[in-house]
Amino acid sequence: MRILILNGPNLNLTGTREPKIYGHQTFDSFIKQLLKLFPKAEITYKQSNVEGELINILQAANDDFDGIVFNPAAYSHTSIALADTIRSLNIPVIEVHLSNIYARENYRKNSFTAEVCQASLSGFGMDGYRMAIDFLLKNP
Amino acid sequence: MRILILNGPNLNLTGTREPKIYGHQTFDSFIKQLLKLFPKAEITYKQSNVEGELINILQAANDDFDGIVFNPAAYSHTSIALADTIRSLNIPVIEVHLSNIYARENYRKNSFTAEVCQASLSGFGMDGYRMAIDFLLKNP
Amino acid sequence: MRILILNGPNLNLTGTREPKIYGHQTFDSFIKQLLKLFPKAEITYKQSNVEGELINILQAANDDFDGIVFNPAAYSHTSIALADTIRSLNIPVIEVHLSNIYARENYRKNSFTAEVCQASLSGFGMDGYRMAIDFLLKNP
Amino acid sequence: MRILILNGPNLNLTGTREPKIYGHQTFDSFIKQLLKLFPKAEITYKQSNVEGELINILQAANDDFDGIVFNPAAYSHTSIALADTIRSLNIPVIEVHLSNIYARENYRKNSFTAEVCQASLSGFGMDGYRMAIDFLLKNP
Amino acid sequence: MRILILNGPNLNLTGTREPKIYGHQTFDSFIKQLLKLFPKAEITYKQSNVEGELINILQAANDDFDGIVFNPAAYSHTSIALADTIRSLNIPVIEVHLSNIYARENYRKNSFTAEVCQASLSGFGMDGYRMAIDFLLKNP
Amino acid sequence: MRILILNGPNLNLTGTREPKIYGHQTFDSFIKQLLKLFPKAEITYKQSNVEGELINILQAANDDFDGIVFNPAAYSHTSIALADTIRSLNIPVIEVHLSNIYARENYRKNSFTAEVCQASLSGFGMDGYRMAIDFLLKNP
Amino acid sequence: MRILILNGPNLNLTGTREPKIYGHQTFDSFIKQLLKLFPKAEITYKQSNVEGELINILQAANDDFDGIVFNPAAYSHTSIALADTIRSLNIPVIEVHLSNIYARENYRKNSFTAEVCQASLSGFGMDGYRMAIDFLLKNP
Amino acid sequence: MRILILNGPNLNLTGTREPKIYGHQTFDSFIKQLLKLFPKAEITYKQSNVEGELINILQAANDDFDGIVFNPAAYSHTSIALADTIRSLNIPVIEVHLSNIYARENYRKNSFTAEVCQASLSGFGMDGYRMAIDFLLKNP
Amino acid sequence: MRILILNGPNLNLTGTREPKIYGHQTFDSFIKQLLKLFPKAEITYKQSNVEGELINILQAANDDFDGIVFNPAAYSHTSIALADTIRSLNIPVIEVHLSNIYARENYRKNSFTAEVCQASLSGFGMDGYRMAIDFLLKNP
Amino acid sequence: MRILILNGPNLNLTGTREPKIYGHQTFDSFIKQLLKLFPKAEITYKQSNVEGELINILQAANDDFDGIVFNPAAYSHTSIALADTIRSLNIPVIEVHLSNIYARENYRKNSFTAEVCQASLSGFGMDGYRMAIDFLLKNP
Amino acid sequence: MRILILNGPNLNLTGTREPKIYGHQTFDSFIKQLLKLFPKAEITYKQSNVEGELINILQAANDDFDGIVFNPAAYSHTSIALADTIRSLNIPVIEVHLSNIYARENYRKNSFTAEVCQASLSGFGMDGYRMAIDFLLKNP
Amino acid sequence: MRILILNGPNLNLTGTREPKIYGHQTFDSFIKQLLKLFPKAEITYKQSNVEGELINILQAANDDFDGIVFNPAAYSHTSIALADTIRSLNIPVIEVHLSNIYARENYRKNSFTAEVCQASLSGFGMDGYRMAIDFLLKNP
Repeated sequence: MRILILNGPNLNLTGTREPKIYGHQTFDSFIKQLLKLFPKAEITYKQSNVEGELINILQAANDDFDGIVFNPAAYSHTSIALADTIRSLNIPVIEVHLSNIYARENYRKNSFTAEVCQASLSGFGMDGYRMAIDFLLKNP
Repeated sequence: MRILILNGPNLNLTGTREPKIYGHQTFDSFIKQLLKLFPKAEITYKQSNVEGELINILQAANDDFDGIVFNPAAYSHTSIALADTIRSLNIPVIEVHLSNIYARENYRKNSFTAEVCQASLSGFGMDGYRMAIDFLLKNP
Repeated sequence: MRILILNGPNLNLTGTREPKIYGHQTFDSFIKQLLKLFPKAEITYKQSNVEGELINILQAANDDFDGIVFNPAAYSHTSIALADTIRSLNIPVIEVHLSNIYARENYRKNSFTAEVCQASLSGFGMDGYRMAIDFLLKNP
Repeated sequence: MRILILNGPNLNLTGTREPKIYGHQTFDSFIKQLLKLFPKAEITYKQSNVEGELINILQAANDDFDGIVFNPAAYSHTSIALADTIRSLNIPVIEVHLSNIYARENYRKNSFTAEVCQASLSGFGMDGYRMAIDFLLKNP
Repeated sequence: MRILILNGPNLNLTGTREPKIYGHQTFDSFIKQLLKLFPKAEITYKQSNVEGELINILQAANDDFDGIVFNPAAYSHTSIALADTIRSLNIPVIEVHLSNIYARENYRKNSFTAEVCQASLSGFGMDGYRMAIDFLLKNP
Repeated sequence: MRILILNGPNLNLTGTREPKIYGHQTFDSFIKQLLKLFPKAEITYKQSNVEGELINILQAANDDFDGIVFNPAAYSHTSIALADTIRSLNIPVIEVHLSNIYARENYRKNSFTAEVCQASLSGFGMDGYRMAIDFLLKNP
Repeated sequence: MRILILNGPNLNLTGTREPKIYGHQTFDSFIKQLLKLFPKAEITYKQSNVEGELINILQAANDDFDGIVFNPAAYSHTSIALADTIRSLNIPVIEVHLSNIYARENYRKNSFTAEVCQASLSGFGMDGYRMAIDFLLKNP
Repeated sequence: MRILILNGPNLNLTGTREPKIYGHQTFDSFIKQLLKLFPKAEITYKQSNVEGELINILQAANDDFDGIVFNPAAYSHTSIALADTIRSLNIPVIEVHLSNIYARENYRKNSFTAEVCQASLSGFGMDGYRMAIDFLLKNP
Repeated sequence: MRILILNGPNLNLTGTREPKIYGHQTFDSFIKQLLKLFPKAEITYKQSNVEGELINILQAANDDFDGIVFNPAAYSHTSIALADTIRSLNIPVIEVHLSNIYARENYRKNSFTAEVCQASLSGFGMDGYRMAIDFLLKNP
Repeated sequence: MRILILNGPNLNLTGTREPKIYGHQTFDSFIKQLLKLFPKAEITYKQSNVEGELINILQAANDDFDGIVFNPAAYSHTSIALADTIRSLNIPVIEVHLSNIYARENYRKNSFTAEVCQASLSGFGMDGYRMAIDFLLKNP
Repeated sequence: MRILILNGPNLNLTGTREPKIYGHQTFDSFIKQLLKLFPKAEITYKQSNVEGELINILQAANDDFDGIVFNPAAYSHTSIALADTIRSLNIPVIEVHLSNIYARENYRKNSFTAEVCQASLSGFGMDGYRMAIDFLLKNP
Repeated sequence: MRILILNGPNLNLTGTREPKIYGHQTFDSFIKQLLKLFPKAEITYKQSNVEGELINILQAANDDFDGIVFNPAAYSHTSIALADTIRSLNIPVIEVHLSNIYARENYRKNSFTAEVCQASLSGFGMDGYRMAIDFLLKNP
């Protein structure tokens, strides 16, 4: 199974800044762990801070992957365009958030993207990515 | 690790009615699967349709369990009392919803309980319970 | 035809308190009238002040009755859980309110339960129950 | 007892268009049924698509009728003027809607007219008119 | 004078959990203090986490008590049903909150129950109960 | 100066129904008083319950009158169409309401028509018409 | 192809008043241009300021025309009744507005009628009617 | 009849600044005109920019005057305190605004004070004061 | 213990106007009662209708008193400035309202000042001041 | 006349995915049709999923084109930045939407961009582009 | 250049209370610094806690000063009256806030006064006053 | 001190279009002025119309600069992503707007970015950049 892990804005900073909230691990080292954990899955990791590039990546992923684990970060709450893209895909998309978005600012309670994803989870830290991949592999 | 799976209103009907939405599996048979899957975990299953009984069960669980997987169902959206109870507990609570609550009625977007749980997931069907237990065991 | 008349919170007080609003007749005496009026119908009367018990009664009624006349009283306006229960039933539910809920406080204008009932009426006093039963019998 | 059945906008189409929602019976044939059903009542049927003509008819009805069964249709949700007229009448007005307005668009939840009617019912189809007349006759 | 002290959800935890917010004293020991302080008053203490049981207790209290000191806790903000019950009572009800509800979450600013109580106080800690009883005794 | 007094819905009832609110004088007798009071003004009185007829009358008045005293009644709060008509006129329009609309239902606080009239008054009873005519005559 | 051009309130003033906004051309002269432009189409032009008459015209048009170009003007924003009529028609309705309604008052942003029309355009001035007819002819 | 004309904040500037909006006449010269116009009325003029001083003046006026013409200016929209004062008076208060407050910013549409005045007018310029006095004299 | 009783706008009228709502006792006679009731407390009474003077008094009170019983009346609902002052004080402030503000207009439900006071009570009439002083003395 | 057709996010998918909503034709083939249809117009087609690139293209177009047909897709509803760009252009911009945005989610009813375009149309499918070009050519 | 520094409610406390938020410097010592820093400017400092006195001072300043640096503190968010005063002035007014009002309570996000000032700054502490004076001097 | 001046969408047009609002000076010539004015500061100027590129630039600036003067233009009001980036930086960010955003459309009153910047100013035109740099240099 080919799985794309796609991260949205500011997630490239994970592990290097604000460790209290996001922990000390960088995504590069985390992806290595994931690869070991799921040796049979073909896992690809991409990140962009640009809303439109995330749309480009998602559109292209439709043909190249069997499932997507997507953390749209702040764009969850503001991007109807990303939601339109997800709606057009034929493969399952799971939305992941590192922190519990329900426990933060009010403007993080709305999620245009979660509405069109198959499922979503938030507050599990980096482990959320592992859980989402695990789910995709068990429910192909 | 002692884990309580607690289900809120109408989840006793799962598997017997509205199979299109909730599938054909009953919770009784699902719990048996879970017990096999996690032989080392002590898993207890409870359900109630009464908001106040759920409060009673959660209060008592604080001493008897090491973690709770809680599906408050409709009470997520209306019960400040349940949120107050969760806030008073010393053990982690993970909120689970069978369906993707973001893709349903607007009044299901607010969750008083998710705000005070450690993490939450929705839209994974019954597999969400397995994922939550798995997380609790891996992050004791 | 087996019909359940189910009353929600505070309706056990009808006839004994606030007669200006709710009249002087108790439900016990009213039910006796109904039994005479509809001799062929099997009419059962239940009441509870507990939201979750109303859910329990409704769930059980699915197998034992052919129709329900339900006055959820204040829970109409606050209970998504009761609405979820009604949505899961296979028999018709008619919502009844003694007073005209449109002419009262603003917070009584929303009704989660009326949204999922087949039909609803309000403002006909106790006669509303008779009308609902009459409708169920004429539209089996 | 002299009863006026008054229908608002688009109800002249009933039975000829959108039969899935409104059924196949026209109001003309339905009124004939009603006349047979209530031989002692003097039933008059009027309809207008014009808000102001409905006001004219209601004003005139105050002297000529003992009760009104009124389906304001879409004007329920937008006409303060009709509500002012009803408020000025000395005879009881019962509001009737064919479909369950609670289960439709959000903008149908407000009803200026139901607020000033004695009682209202919705979702009973054409039978709702019979029920309303029946109530007026039994509660003169 | 017979006075009922009635506590709503989660108040059975007072003194045992979250002492920073609610202090170290349990209600059992506090009630003993109150009995000494008001030797002439007949003080009864009840608590329930179930909204409907609180309704049952309040309904029954109408005949057995001369005044009620009621802390509905979270149900203040969500229960129209409890407000309906209070409205039907013939004895004074004083609403008490341990913490200053104005200084907490926005959703605690609305109180369905305070609207129908005679008076209310919040932020006085346990002393609020003594003040309410004192008021009832001085204003019989 | 040619002045049109134009009344909207339900104002034809003034003096004959709800005398507590609107007094005992009919508009016919009131107009006679006005004619005596302002012998030099050419005063014409019209009334309609139909929003569109009020538009027709206002459009035609542009050429035939020098000023309009308009009581749109309930249409003030709901009719953008009437406001559009007033906006297109070249003669001054004064809005008059018999009762103090600020002291009534919330939905009477918005006035599409007052926004485009030159001035407005409310709460002066029938005397408000005299005041408006007086103003038009003094400020030609 | 038989096409009805239907204009709502105040559009009879076009060309004679407020030329800055609506231009100097009257609808009568414009219709003549249209007839020359589309010699094969049977174009009929109607206008009314009365909401209910527009409903009457639309209902009748269902049998007599193959398409409707409708400018409901201010009624777009307030008339659920007109929207209900359009919903009941079997022929395509195109909504046209002379000015760009997005660039005007906030209360012009909602359009009950556009929601149920096949398509809509605004801001093209009188040319919008030509464009709508052209579309209907090209997409019969 | 003793009448108090009371002006709120910034009205002391009338006639000296922003003549386009408020005209060139100062209140001092206007009051002289009024005195001549109503020789039998005892007219007193006061102005303050301080909300609390307006309260003081209104409270004192209850014993010294038979009617008040009050232009609360901006405080209409923000002062519940002034509304409470007006509610406590035993003499009629007429609210006056120089400009048409309906045609200005949205935050000028709410008026706490107009809600408790007997009547109100806006948009008549300085003439509004004369009209209000005239009304008080004619309706003692 | 030195205690300041501070009253806001219109409370100087208490006992002389609107006795139905506020009773027949003036504050002067009430303060004399309080002095007798609490002989050891040094009680000072001040009142102002001016928001800014209340700020001045509160600022000065910080050094001269050990506690404040404050009834901000209408300013509770509109004055962020008063709330800022209270926030800057080092002595406890108890908010008191004569009537039950929850049972009145919606705009009285918000209280900027209660949010920053230690505690608040409403609906106890004049007795509320005694209760607040009693609390301050018992909790120095 | 030089015309730029500019498409926003996800419109590059047209014709290849979700044919039920957007049809089977790709933009490439459609542009070829347009070129044939308007042989005298110089038509250029661009598309981007990146909000900022659309801004870049629009800014550059001001000098290179005489008119723009712009489908901002989802960015219509969220991009104030794009609206600012359009506001700064000296050439006409026509907004086009394939589907009827009034008949979709509520969050598609607001359009920042339509507010600053000259005109807009929605629901005409691909034909909307042809209509917009036709308009620009006829109204240079 | 004659410059007025005007401070609103509670700013007289700066430097003596809540030093964490507002620093240790009093305005008196700060003004002395400013005088040295801008030897050519005639700087006057005034402060009042009374909204109406601030209006008085601003009105008078129009003739005596060439520019105003105004910190309305809490009145920014509630005073339409102050905004009306600023609107009537002929000299530039710069609004200054010590703290970043965007980072505080939601009710501080609205500023009636900033809307009518020439410019505003917040979050620069006392340095903000220096920056505003510097701007006025450089842009006379 | 190394300072980054970062401009958001459409600010590259400054000086070339809409000179009435933004003046005639381009940023290039303005930056040259700034360099002369602050010879000791190392000032770098960047601009992008792409939200995600602004994020990239801000992230990189954390290591290369000691302070940022940021004009996010329209993205202030819509970009939670940019706010998240600013929150993660360790150097001060000052938000600058050319025009007074309080005096423009309502949707410009919210600023996600100002909430997380140290301070902000608006309405000072290009001089605002100079003021912000001056502040950073004086408060290193």
